Amino acid sequence: MTERVVLAYSGGLDTSVAIPFLAEKMGAEVIAVALDCGQGGEDMEQIRQRALDCGAVESVVEDAKEEFARDFCFPAIRANALYMDRYPLVSALSRPLIVKHLAAAAARFGGTHVAHGCTGKGNDQVRFEAGLMALNPDLKCVAPARDYAWTRDKAIAFAEEKGLPIEVSGKNPYSIDQNLWGRAVETGFLEDIWNAPIEDLYAYTADPSVPREADELVITFENGVPTAIDGRPLTPFQIIDELNKRAGAQGVGRLDMVEDRLVGIKSREVYEAPAAIALLAAHQELENVTVERDLARFKRSVDQRWGELVYDGLWFSPLKTALESFIAEAQQHVNGDVRLTLHGGRAVVTGRRSGSSLYDYDLATYDTGDTFDQSLAKGFVDLWSLPSKIASVRDRRNGS
Amino acid sequence: MTERVVLAYSGGLDTSVAIPFLAEKMGAEVIAVALDCGQGGEDMEQIRQRALDCGAVESVVEDAKEEFARDFCFPAIRANALYMDRYPLVSALSRPLIVKHLAAAAARFGGTHVAHGCTGKGNDQVRFEAGLMALNPDLKCVAPARDYAWTRDKAIAFAEEKGLPIEVSGKNPYSIDQNLWGRAVETGFLEDIWNAPIEDLYAYTADPSVPREADELVITFENGVPTAIDGRPLTPFQIIDELNKRAGAQGVGRLDMVEDRLVGIKSREVYEAPAAIALLAAHQELENVTVERDLARFKRSVDQRWGELVYDGLWFSPLKTALESFIAEAQQHVNGDVRLTLHGGRAVVTGRRSGSSLYDYDLATYDTGDTFDQSLAKGFVDLWSLPSKIASVRDRRNGS
Amino acid sequence: MTERVVLAYSGGLDTSVAIPFLAEKMGAEVIAVALDCGQGGEDMEQIRQRALDCGAVESVVEDAKEEFARDFCFPAIRANALYMDRYPLVSALSRPLIVKHLAAAAARFGGTHVAHGCTGKGNDQVRFEAGLMALNPDLKCVAPARDYAWTRDKAIAFAEEKGLPIEVSGKNPYSIDQNLWGRAVETGFLEDIWNAPIEDLYAYTADPSVPREADELVITFENGVPTAIDGRPLTPFQIIDELNKRAGAQGVGRLDMVEDRLVGIKSREVYEAPAAIALLAAHQELENVTVERDLARFKRSVDQRWGELVYDGLWFSPLKTALESFIAEAQQHVNGDVRLTLHGGRAVVTGRRSGSSLYDYDLATYDTGDTFDQSLAKGFVDLWSLPSKIASVRDRRNGS
Amino acid sequence: MTERVVLAYSGGLDTSVAIPFLAEKMGAEVIAVALDCGQGGEDMEQIRQRALDCGAVESVVEDAKEEFARDFCFPAIRANALYMDRYPLVSALSRPLIVKHLAAAAARFGGTHVAHGCTGKGNDQVRFEAGLMALNPDLKCVAPARDYAWTRDKAIAFAEEKGLPIEVSGKNPYSIDQNLWGRAVETGFLEDIWNAPIEDLYAYTADPSVPREADELVITFENGVPTAIDGRPLTPFQIIDELNKRAGAQGVGRLDMVEDRLVGIKSREVYEAPAAIALLAAHQELENVTVERDLARFKRSVDQRWGELVYDGLWFSPLKTALESFIAEAQQHVNGDVRLTLHGGRAVVTGRRSGSSLYDYDLATYDTGDTFDQSLAKGFVDLWSLPSKIASVRDRRNGS
Repeated sequence: MTERVVLAYSGGLDTSVAIPFLAEKMGAEVIAVALDCGQGGEDMEQIRQRALDCGAVESVVEDAKEEFARDFCFPAIRANALYMDRYPLVSALSRPLIVKHLAAAAARFGGTHVAHGCTGKGNDQVRFEAGLMALNPDLKCVAPARDYAWTRDKAIAFAEEKGLPIEVSGKNPYSIDQNLWGRAVETGFLEDIWNAPIEDLYAYTADPSVPREADELVITFENGVPTAIDGRPLTPFQIIDELNKRAGAQGVGRLDMVEDRLVGIKSREVYEAPAAIALLAAHQELENVTVERDLARFKRSVDQRWGELVYDGLWFSPLKTALESFIAEAQQHVNGDVRLTLHGGRAVVTGRRSGSSLYDYDLATYDTGDTFDQSLAKGFVDLWSLPSKIASVRDRRNGS
Repeated sequence: MTERVVLAYSGGLDTSVAIPFLAEKMGAEVIAVALDCGQGGEDMEQIRQRALDCGAVESVVEDAKEEFARDFCFPAIRANALYMDRYPLVSALSRPLIVKHLAAAAARFGGTHVAHGCTGKGNDQVRFEAGLMALNPDLKCVAPARDYAWTRDKAIAFAEEKGLPIEVSGKNPYSIDQNLWGRAVETGFLEDIWNAPIEDLYAYTADPSVPREADELVITFENGVPTAIDGRPLTPFQIIDELNKRAGAQGVGRLDMVEDRLVGIKSREVYEAPAAIALLAAHQELENVTVERDLARFKRSVDQRWGELVYDGLWFSPLKTALESFIAEAQQHVNGDVRLTLHGGRAVVTGRRSGSSLYDYDLATYDTGDTFDQSLAKGFVDLWSLPSKIASVRDRRNGS
Repeated sequence: MTERVVLAYSGGLDTSVAIPFLAEKMGAEVIAVALDCGQGGEDMEQIRQRALDCGAVESVVEDAKEEFARDFCFPAIRANALYMDRYPLVSALSRPLIVKHLAAAAARFGGTHVAHGCTGKGNDQVRFEAGLMALNPDLKCVAPARDYAWTRDKAIAFAEEKGLPIEVSGKNPYSIDQNLWGRAVETGFLEDIWNAPIEDLYAYTADPSVPREADELVITFENGVPTAIDGRPLTPFQIIDELNKRAGAQGVGRLDMVEDRLVGIKSREVYEAPAAIALLAAHQELENVTVERDLARFKRSVDQRWGELVYDGLWFSPLKTALESFIAEAQQHVNGDVRLTLHGGRAVVTGRRSGSSLYDYDLATYDTGDTFDQSLAKGFVDLWSLPSKIASVRDRRNGS
Repeated sequence: MTERVVLAYSGGLDTSVAIPFLAEKMGAEVIAVALDCGQGGEDMEQIRQRALDCGAVESVVEDAKEEFARDFCFPAIRANALYMDRYPLVSALSRPLIVKHLAAAAARFGGTHVAHGCTGKGNDQVRFEAGLMALNPDLKCVAPARDYAWTRDKAIAFAEEKGLPIEVSGKNPYSIDQNLWGRAVETGFLEDIWNAPIEDLYAYTADPSVPREADELVITFENGVPTAIDGRPLTPFQIIDELNKRAGAQGVGRLDMVEDRLVGIKSREVYEAPAAIALLAAHQELENVTVERDLARFKRSVDQRWGELVYDGLWFSPLKTALESFIAEAQQHVNGDVRLTLHGGRAVVTGRRSGSSLYDYDLATYDTGDTFDQSLAKGFVDLWSLPSKIASVRDRRNGS
């Protein structure tokens, strides 16, 4: 019986060429699966047809925007997910979503293999394959670019040879991955890490240095995720989409960094993530108001590990699930409103209010009405300091 | 013999009044010690004289600006010190410096007690007293505001009664602490955490929303600390001072947050720290380039703990010393230049170069010359994913 | 109206004397609450009567053995709870149980204060008062020994003066706290930490050096807690009780250590905890078999923090609850049997089997049937080592 | 020019056969390097000659016992190194030592390749190759068992074909690795993890259940490492060697566990490590006496990470070096004596004394002379508990 390969299909040159290539190389039937993760600007029906034109026996496109927002971006908000304290995991979040749909398509269409377009030096191959192994260990993975040393030049020659219906333009100088949560750009001249990014790189964000009016909004959170903007209840996708527009228009969310890839090398990355950066700023401050101190301190290590796991392709790992149990418990009081000013590339919290607040005006105020009993402090200070004091006495005794 | 009390003297109302009060209450001689930690705008000689006029038997003022920059601010840079990922520890850093000088003055002048002006609900009392216990466990601490429930109104009445040479103006609406590393502002209307800060609060930073030309500079780091700006070698104080001016002029470094105090309450704080925020951004990115991944990941927990300890008054604790040994090892390769654009409230890294770089163009590039062996990836991905895969097989077998 | 004080009553001298003392000092009515936490050897009805004889207006005794085992000891097993890697939190676990019953008694009898017999230099005062503040912040705490500097001599004199029905024997040389989970002994001669414990200290354990037959048993775990011994389903109390007897008879569970108290000092403690040590050994090994590696590694830090929090009196803290959500997720596969040999002071695991095992014979074996694909290893090793290699190349280049 | 391969030579069948195999396969000259790491029972000169007889062009044997003890075992003591809280890293410690000597031999003899006998499913391949990449990234690694799917049967056939001077006995049922720090045993029947180990497996330890007289000794530590036994100054090797004998004679140090390998599988291991287990028990207790609480708590995470790194083959990584800087600082006060009773499989600390002790009798005692000021406790308890109390008030208000 002919084997069937489920291909993560983007509609671009590489994955289009992969259809006849895999069919030929493996003697297999190819099923193309394309997802709308909010990357924008694409006609999904046209993509579906293109796969068929390239020889796919089945071609599926799915609108996964709400699923992506709700099940992938929102958990990242709850985990304050910033890899290396900066990168909001744009591509890392969409890969496990795609993996879920690939595994489902394999089940539906009888696929035994799954193919993706990743190279062997990036993170995404790990995210695809680790995810697939976890969801269905019987599936085998194929990555033409990596496993058959497939290059762009080879792809173009193959497309011409086969007469594929693909417009091969001059090489786009940028390698781009984008979705609802943000946009990643790599390009040759940025590989010299002393070079600054240029304005031409950006698509989600306006130039933050152009003078314009500030935008102010109020975000409502429930259980650690946003549910409304300015009092208007919105779906997860709508919230992120609106914030991408409003924060993007103010130049919020540009990032330029050197990053540690899982495969062991450092790479230069430029990102835009307007909604992500704005939402994370709002969420973190609401946690400051509603999460108890010891819990907040430990949650930093949980959040860091969550981000590392997701970056490292381990979305479906037992540890991530357990970290999320911790996070869920910690988020149940993260309710309330955060007022945010978006302006000049900055997303600044200017107010917060919550029915779950742990900020106690009566204890905090220095005005009349202060209920804090200062007489307790002396004993606290003395015992708090006692271990260091005893160590100091020892050190002085021993002359060190 | 008359006891001698060494007083941490600021020149302001509270500590001026404390001089005759402590003399009277304790039957003691008061030695006033005032430090210039770069707070600016003060005539230190005038402060010295004022203490004598208030009845101090000795009055010492010391220029501690370079010491503060080198021994307190620079270690904070190496530790990427941001309490709760935001606050660069402005007051928390100056307290142990003051403590050192108080302990030295006690030794020099035969003091048996040390007095400070802190209340019983803040962090600074802990920083003073924990530090003093560590440096000289025989010293006893007195805090009139806390231990004798001393208030501003009492202080004014006492000053008038004693005819102290202090100008009592109308109540300043702001409670301010400032030094070279930044400025902290608390005030009544900010105790409603929904209220936004107003422009009038700020002194170190210009309004970031006013259009102006960007400022670009290159900071050179050696062993994790800045040593030059635009190629000009500068002292630690000079570097921070220049950056306060240049980053402050661009509105960089404003912070508004709800914060977990050590004494167990949450409080609202507004900070300005232009140099600190700019230097920390530059340092973190240089670490991204020069510090190996596993080391960088673990260093996050070390940095977090360092910041907590310093915030919590444990500057002189054995754990902080041990964390700094770790950090020192990690910083030996943090050498090189970082190009920074200061503009519109943002301090943005646009380039980095280092003789200690771990970024390897040949491994990272997608252009010709790539030396990364992609054939290694398949084995890596499979074994990396194996534990999650085995768990997944188990879970599917057991129907969960 | 007369205030009512709920007293944590042990039946011993100190808390018996506290009844008339508190009644007199505070002009209050005293309600005595005594719990059976499995400490053994006490006639609870006699204790109930004694409190009334001493002047209590109400006296309640409760059998809390199953509650203690199920809700306090079992969570400690799931968290592998060993403070400082040694101490299984014997007293630390019973205090929050007592606190729950005190708070309930206060609600039932209209108590406004709660009293306990702890001193001011131990951990238990924190466990009582932190717990009470969390369960009912309106309750006020009284600790005669601490707050009124009450000593044993004072207590005896007071008892004689009041003619209390208490038999005052010669001073027991040992200070003992014991419950189902173990027994803690402090005594004067052990305060010299060079002195060895003597056989006379022990009550739960036989001398391990006496030759006897080994005892072998199989413990069944479900979701991380024991549910049967040798196939006999037992209640939580029954399991711990049987293991105390069987492991105690083999001398298992003696501990002698210097320990960091929360109040900042180090103290010498001798413990016996036969069931605890045996159950923890079995549980840890079953986790080795059933918990995925990354999850197991992170759980170590979760377990450590859980133990610190419980030791430090924060049983009812938000962080502990969140840590337990993590642990609950991690324990769902900790099912199966562990064979244990108890002998000569050792509890040794000799076999484990589980339907949730992640040990895969086919992958692990070096015999025929090995399914591990060794060809994957080379790529894994090379990329695993790459960051260290790149750092090494840098260091050699820079001559360090 | 003929390539030269440096082979990690054990004298056994596999590595003896590797000499002519590598010579033939690679057309290379083989240099054999064998180390005495204290494995005992071997005539090193005979091993040296055997390599030559098998065709090595050079054969080197080195006595690395003191180096192993001082530079590899002693750092493990300072780090309380127990992987998964149990395994003292026996093989994991010797591999980087061997790697150092292999790299040195490669430099000395002009070797371009290094060969070792590890399979592709164990940890040791990673330890060899990660170490070699760090010490000399230009060296290439060869592992015949892994890279050429070399098996025992093939090896025997090859040995017979080549007439190698190796006595091929019937298959030893045990796979053994041993050195000064301990002994690891794997064997077919233990791959069923329900099977118990049998007495025949053990060589370093006597049966702990046999009645015998206890052995008591005093170990002196300086800076966290042992320097004398019973007052006799000894070298690092001598200390470990003597303790292996004395603790081994009492049956101390047997371990039986399921362990997480780096390559992603779980395996069953039986270990004996008498000296290691005894020294670690003594060291941990001396840390309890001499290390400040916060430092000790954080050091647990440092120690755990150190053990993971060493287990995972990253001895020469930048993170391990930085962790050791932390540890070195923490160990400077770990000085003093520990009295240990070795008996019946247990190594029990019965006394400790130290000039660097933080145990303060005057603060700890409940007898006359107590200097602890109990009046400080109330304030400490109240502020310590305040965050949980505020959270509890919030939760009750919100009905959760």
